[in-house]
Amino acid sequence: MADYFSMDKNALLQEQAALQKEYDAFAAKGLKLDMSRGKPAPDQLDLSMPLLKMDDYMDEDGTDVRNYGALEGCTEARRFFAEILGTTIEETFVAGNSSLNMMYNMLDLGWRHGFPESPKPWKDCDTIKFLCPSPGYDRHFRVSESFGFELLMVPMLPTGPDMDVVEELVRDEAVKGIWSIPVYSNPDGYVYSDETVQRLAKMDAAAPDFRIFWDNAYGVHHLTEVAYACPNLLLACRAAGHENRALMFCSTSKVTFSGGGVGAMGASVQNVAAAAEYLFPMTICYDKINQLRHVRFLRKVGLENHMEKHAQMLRPKFGVVVDELHRQLDACGTIARWTEPKGGYFLSLFVPDGCAKRVVALCKQAGVVLTGAGAAFPYGVDPNDSHIRIAPTYPPIEELKTAAQLLCIATRLASVEKLLAAQPA
Amino acid sequence: MADYFSMDKNALLQEQAALQKEYDAFAAKGLKLDMSRGKPAPDQLDLSMPLLKMDDYMDEDGTDVRNYGALEGCTEARRFFAEILGTTIEETFVAGNSSLNMMYNMLDLGWRHGFPESPKPWKDCDTIKFLCPSPGYDRHFRVSESFGFELLMVPMLPTGPDMDVVEELVRDEAVKGIWSIPVYSNPDGYVYSDETVQRLAKMDAAAPDFRIFWDNAYGVHHLTEVAYACPNLLLACRAAGHENRALMFCSTSKVTFSGGGVGAMGASVQNVAAAAEYLFPMTICYDKINQLRHVRFLRKVGLENHMEKHAQMLRPKFGVVVDELHRQLDACGTIARWTEPKGGYFLSLFVPDGCAKRVVALCKQAGVVLTGAGAAFPYGVDPNDSHIRIAPTYPPIEELKTAAQLLCIATRLASVEKLLAAQPA
Repeated sequence: MADYFSMDKNALLQEQAALQKEYDAFAAKGLKLDMSRGKPAPDQLDLSMPLLKMDDYMDEDGTDVRNYGALEGCTEARRFFAEILGTTIEETFVAGNSSLNMMYNMLDLGWRHGFPESPKPWKDCDTIKFLCPSPGYDRHFRVSESFGFELLMVPMLPTGPDMDVVEELVRDEAVKGIWSIPVYSNPDGYVYSDETVQRLAKMDAAAPDFRIFWDNAYGVHHLTEVAYACPNLLLACRAAGHENRALMFCSTSKVTFSGGGVGAMGASVQNVAAAAEYLFPMTICYDKINQLRHVRFLRKVGLENHMEKHAQMLRPKFGVVVDELHRQLDACGTIARWTEPKGGYFLSLFVPDGCAKRVVALCKQAGVVLTGAGAAFPYGVDPNDSHIRIAPTYPPIEELKTAAQLLCIATRLASVEKLLAAQPA
Repeated sequence: MADYFSMDKNALLQEQAALQKEYDAFAAKGLKLDMSRGKPAPDQLDLSMPLLKMDDYMDEDGTDVRNYGALEGCTEARRFFAEILGTTIEETFVAGNSSLNMMYNMLDLGWRHGFPESPKPWKDCDTIKFLCPSPGYDRHFRVSESFGFELLMVPMLPTGPDMDVVEELVRDEAVKGIWSIPVYSNPDGYVYSDETVQRLAKMDAAAPDFRIFWDNAYGVHHLTEVAYACPNLLLACRAAGHENRALMFCSTSKVTFSGGGVGAMGASVQNVAAAAEYLFPMTICYDKINQLRHVRFLRKVGLENHMEKHAQMLRPKFGVVVDELHRQLDACGTIARWTEPKGGYFLSLFVPDGCAKRVVALCKQAGVVLTGAGAAFPYGVDPNDSHIRIAPTYPPIEELKTAAQLLCIATRLASVEKLLAAQPA
């Protein structure tokens, strides 16, 4: 192996032949591996099995959670998530099994009814634009896309979204919000800097009802001994005179069970009241039994201890992927770069421009499913066709090793193909 | 006691004085009773406690329900609810803890996107009208009201909505749907006749995307040994060439836990596919852990046996109320009539026109909260101010007896007041 950029055509052809042989050997194995979604592995899910044996039903305030009522969540759950979100109980809404659904609902609230300071419902505006720090989370972008909003890409930096770009774009009053994953971002694993948070809170947005959808999905999902964190967005926004700007979300989908957990929102009292009013016709209440047992279970085992057990399972998986990337790609020159997150569920691999789709296709042909190239960008289109999201959490470590080997071979093969195509005829 | 209509003014004044004395005695007791909502009592909730100790997580098809996936519900749950709804698995969507939320979503689907045969989304229509058989369920009416629809009252008969009126109204293409609780209707406890179901299925609706929101909330909630039922609406609609017209719902909110149960929808494959497409941006999946344990628990104990235990608790409660109504009101002449349901959670009391609000206010002053007068009508307005919804399930039987006594006294007092007001000066 040597720097591909220093190779002449013959050397590249030789490398291509060697890689093709390695690739064919993998393809012959009949692999069926999936690195496409950020799902916890079964051993992680096993950590929370005692939760399923808890039949607590009396809330701290004497409410029987087996019956109707308490749309904003049972008191103990509101108290618990308030601690996580850095809010008061009154600023905390505990919902159902899906924080994504709560985000969708808040966006729908703005769209159908408008927020307290909206000049009119967003549906009555000619154009609504949403800022999408990219690469980002495909399901966020899809929510705003489903409402017909125009999605504006903002480059992601290791400090968070490029705030120079954000501050420029929000001068347009059609820009009503921004998606954010502040801690261990999906997919880069970046943590927003203090400065980014302050600038988001303070910036002059032309839209009076501008909203930051702050999805702190991985806030307690550390992979190292350092518990990286961001300043509290609600407090920062309040200090800047924009307290209704912050809509903070978190969930236990990757703490306990994915799709069987509890989602919550932290926001100003006015936003929480608007949410409750909007949600009232939609449902009688959320599943408070699941809320209460989650709180009791996580208090009993200790959230930090519990997450450390997750980390013990995930660290070697991230390690295997990153090690293989180094082993195969370090010597090839700058054909690829990648992030090495300190937490969360993903890492980003950047291959040469124009090669991401080819790499994903090569992997797929050999039996390894990756997230579709472009998925982390608005409308599913990566303008550079360069980014691949790696989700190393679900496969067993041996399979992951195999998948990472194949991924690196495919990356090298696609890179060589590109260099060859650029050679003079 | 005698027929109030045969009393002269003096007799009425005597009766009023006697009733006022009785009423004051109740008011002095400092009662705090609530007959306002259809909630199961704690002993009913206790019946399902073993459910909370079930930690099953492997679906019959090998899916780990602790992880993401299966938006339409886990296979076992779809099979189970298909049996209840009389549908195939493919015609069955199993959702979260709230069937009301699923109804809301289906209405929002029509509003935002339109159904497969909609000329355009309902939001782009000048006027949308919805038929509200009344008295009916306030939360149904509120869903359609929250979308700004015009609510049209249809009289409820013991056979279901007055179909002559319905058939006339659906000739207006702005009429897009009808609310229905076909078995043990809320609040009357009526069961739709076979003819009503056939006429709903066959009628010529001007709107090609007309939808029947068929909330079979009490389909297994019998109070007698007869399991009253309706013909299968989806089959009837299919036979009439209108299979997309039927949207059937059910839930376990009053089988297991209220707000902690599972809701489901039965509909044509096309409707189920439209629902899944619409819901995709909104959530990753519903809580399949709760789905699976519900199915396993209810199969284990037997749904019929389980519901018979509920019935044993509810029968005496309905009995106490109905007995007291007979005891106090039979002799008073036709001041009141009421329904005596064979299942469900409610009964209707009709007091003299113009007296319902007064009766509810009298009860409230004496410490007994009833559902607000008019709540069972569109916009919360009973044009006759005559109807009171009685929810006898939640209070302990002794309290219920007291509340029923007071209710009857209040009914008689309000009736006497009305007769006195009509006396020549």
